[in-house]
Amino acid sequence: MRLLTTCLVLFLAQQGLSLAKVVADDGYRPNFVVIFCDDLGYGDLACFGHPTIATPNLDRMAAEGMKFTQFYAAAPVCTPSRAALMTGRLPLRNGMCSNNRRVLFPDSKGGLPAEEITIAEALQANGYSTACVGKWHLGHLPEYLPTNNGFDYYFGIPYSNDMDRMNEAPKGRDAFWDPEVRYWNVPLMRNTEIIERPADQTTITRRYTDEATKFIRESKDSPFFLYLPHSMPHVPLFCSSDFSGKSRRGLFGDVIEEIDWSVGQVLDTLRELELDSNTLVVFTSDNGPWLIFDEQGGSAGLLRDGKGSTWEGGMREPTLAWWPGQIKPGTVSRDVASTMDLFATFYALAGINLPTDRVLDSHDLTPVLKGTGGSSRETLFYYRSYELMAVRKGPWKMHRMTQDAYGAGSREPKQHDPPLLYNLEHDPGEKLDVASDHADVIELLRAEIELHQASLIVVDSQLER
Amino acid sequence: MRLLTTCLVLFLAQQGLSLAKVVADDGYRPNFVVIFCDDLGYGDLACFGHPTIATPNLDRMAAEGMKFTQFYAAAPVCTPSRAALMTGRLPLRNGMCSNNRRVLFPDSKGGLPAEEITIAEALQANGYSTACVGKWHLGHLPEYLPTNNGFDYYFGIPYSNDMDRMNEAPKGRDAFWDPEVRYWNVPLMRNTEIIERPADQTTITRRYTDEATKFIRESKDSPFFLYLPHSMPHVPLFCSSDFSGKSRRGLFGDVIEEIDWSVGQVLDTLRELELDSNTLVVFTSDNGPWLIFDEQGGSAGLLRDGKGSTWEGGMREPTLAWWPGQIKPGTVSRDVASTMDLFATFYALAGINLPTDRVLDSHDLTPVLKGTGGSSRETLFYYRSYELMAVRKGPWKMHRMTQDAYGAGSREPKQHDPPLLYNLEHDPGEKLDVASDHADVIELLRAEIELHQASLIVVDSQLER
Repeated sequence: MRLLTTCLVLFLAQQGLSLAKVVADDGYRPNFVVIFCDDLGYGDLACFGHPTIATPNLDRMAAEGMKFTQFYAAAPVCTPSRAALMTGRLPLRNGMCSNNRRVLFPDSKGGLPAEEITIAEALQANGYSTACVGKWHLGHLPEYLPTNNGFDYYFGIPYSNDMDRMNEAPKGRDAFWDPEVRYWNVPLMRNTEIIERPADQTTITRRYTDEATKFIRESKDSPFFLYLPHSMPHVPLFCSSDFSGKSRRGLFGDVIEEIDWSVGQVLDTLRELELDSNTLVVFTSDNGPWLIFDEQGGSAGLLRDGKGSTWEGGMREPTLAWWPGQIKPGTVSRDVASTMDLFATFYALAGINLPTDRVLDSHDLTPVLKGTGGSSRETLFYYRSYELMAVRKGPWKMHRMTQDAYGAGSREPKQHDPPLLYNLEHDPGEKLDVASDHADVIELLRAEIELHQASLIVVDSQLER
Repeated sequence: MRLLTTCLVLFLAQQGLSLAKVVADDGYRPNFVVIFCDDLGYGDLACFGHPTIATPNLDRMAAEGMKFTQFYAAAPVCTPSRAALMTGRLPLRNGMCSNNRRVLFPDSKGGLPAEEITIAEALQANGYSTACVGKWHLGHLPEYLPTNNGFDYYFGIPYSNDMDRMNEAPKGRDAFWDPEVRYWNVPLMRNTEIIERPADQTTITRRYTDEATKFIRESKDSPFFLYLPHSMPHVPLFCSSDFSGKSRRGLFGDVIEEIDWSVGQVLDTLRELELDSNTLVVFTSDNGPWLIFDEQGGSAGLLRDGKGSTWEGGMREPTLAWWPGQIKPGTVSRDVASTMDLFATFYALAGINLPTDRVLDSHDLTPVLKGTGGSSRETLFYYRSYELMAVRKGPWKMHRMTQDAYGAGSREPKQHDPPLLYNLEHDPGEKLDVASDHADVIELLRAEIELHQASLIVVDSQLER
């Protein structure tokens, strides 16, 4: 009888996932966790091909979940990218971009307009507990903070970790090669209060992690949304002493390996609380690697260029989705998808109706995640600030303009007439311009641009206030 | 009682690997399978970061086994690379390279010298059944064929699939863009006989696979060594109708996806015959991608350059090792290793004493595979023909000379004095020359070169006969 019991326990343990799946299918609202990096390149994780950065927790997340190989940030730079993630709308629809100022700075007066609906606001209004732990960068004046945008709780540095530079810091890029906390007088906030300044960035990833897992524990009985936008690996790079000097890849690798540890902590907490089968976790980043920082910047892998550019390396991100029991383990999605799609996906999974009073740029990824179908997304628009630089439809990408990444090469965009055309699925590195062979495709893509532009009501820039 | 039986079956099925492991540890000689591609790039598999080539069987092999991220072919081109794999020795020690002819051609009179010991000869002499199925390229005159080099059986095209070009074929690279079988009059051989000419390359990967799995079935009761060097994805690219037009990556992707299928067939056959826990399977390639063939060539991922070059893209290969029960699933080895190391590894695992009458360039990888330690390899030498172009020790790579990949740029090497120095673990893409900061490292690497060169007895080229 004892053997029978042992066997039954073993057998039932194996069936655990299936039982949980039934619960989720019965309409229980899932929890959502978005882990968002800053300036992480397409090639910076082991599961996306990096040879010397060890990311065992992210590799395991991929093995247990889904890897997206054609998943894009909505912009090649921070503020616009985050605004689009939060609202499911291109940044030029809500003024969160500018041709003159790339992002919000400490002297900025603007932020995400109140009339925008964030994912957090929708979920909060529908009974979710919500927290933002990390870098916000959608406005740091009180009215724009996370707690005014649908989050019950905020903990983090409200803008980029390289801002508020002190006079004592070395000039130009020299400050970054051997960074010290005191060079950047960035605030650390809890809700609307500054609790530390300068924020001790050496422990920032660890403290974000502690706050994140604490929130999960406290919210385990209600549905919750945790938005965890790490300040790293944006320069200046910092990591805690447990990770310093440990990676084969130098300081940049140390920082990624601490983020990998952090992901492991989040997933382990979900497993421990038996919330894993009812929580969708998405891991991605805001834009590509900041290549001018040499060893302190990441790698776009086989993709061209990096942060600030609308070449693939500037916007395509290493993306993972994890939801045991719902997402088939070890799958790869090659659907074209965007951080903006999380908006419609979370609405659908939480059973909330999408707003009908505005244009959305968001497509529900539920069929992709559940393996029941593809994405309804047909086009992807590559903006740099207000400029529509390129468009993708199916495998084809047409560049009307290109511009070098931030800090590299020319400050002026290069116009292309005729445009450049690449088949991204044959040639992901954008090496072979095939425009002269495909006049029909160019016509098609031009028509898509006209259709798209007819939907635009461009509003004033919040970044120039 | 029925439930108890069911539970017991489930339970014992789970324990299968552990039981098999005990057998292997008790000294039973493992089988060896080497699956070797031709011109496969570091970035061409999904598990090494390719976004649009689907390689589910290789991904599973990685998930169940070990991924090597710093594993090298012994040369950036075919014949020398294969000679080194077979003998555990640098090609200039056995004359299998040349500064004038890159590889053996159909009019060549030379081949692997009889005094060389191949892995196959050693295993055959110790009771292994041995077969070579695929591209040989170590001599096609009778005395040099696989059946005279330790293989009981041979089936394949004895040299590159782009040789014996017919006059009717389009000139130059034009023949490759829309390849037809009749353009290349290459022979298909069984043992020492030509059985088809021109070989029907559209079915070559499928037929190699059928021959390989047949050999495994026939050899299941004896230890065996299967060497399976695919003719693909060397141009001209061909695949069978089941794969034609199926990949998102075009013809090149179709070809890789057929190789992936082939790997699945081999592993499934091993599983079906319950040989999986006693068979070490290694997957790798002879050199990097042939970049001048544009879409018909592969991708080195984040690495620099390709076939023919001693930049990393020319010699570092996407490598997997699979041995259920012996290799921990889902592990990544970042040890520096070489195809030449398979020689000492297979000797060790088969319990054969290494030859003591010659210099070997081979290091036993058993501790790496079993997770009990690192590799004893401290240096790696990058040769292009007889020229020592670069050396690696630890993370440091020093280039004395560089040369563009075959068919690209200059035909003359560029000398570097002072040499170029890269930290490959921080900067795998070889973008940041740090020679001026590390005079001490350059001295150390120069000393390694002197030590190495003292061991060399250079023999006449077989490729110029």
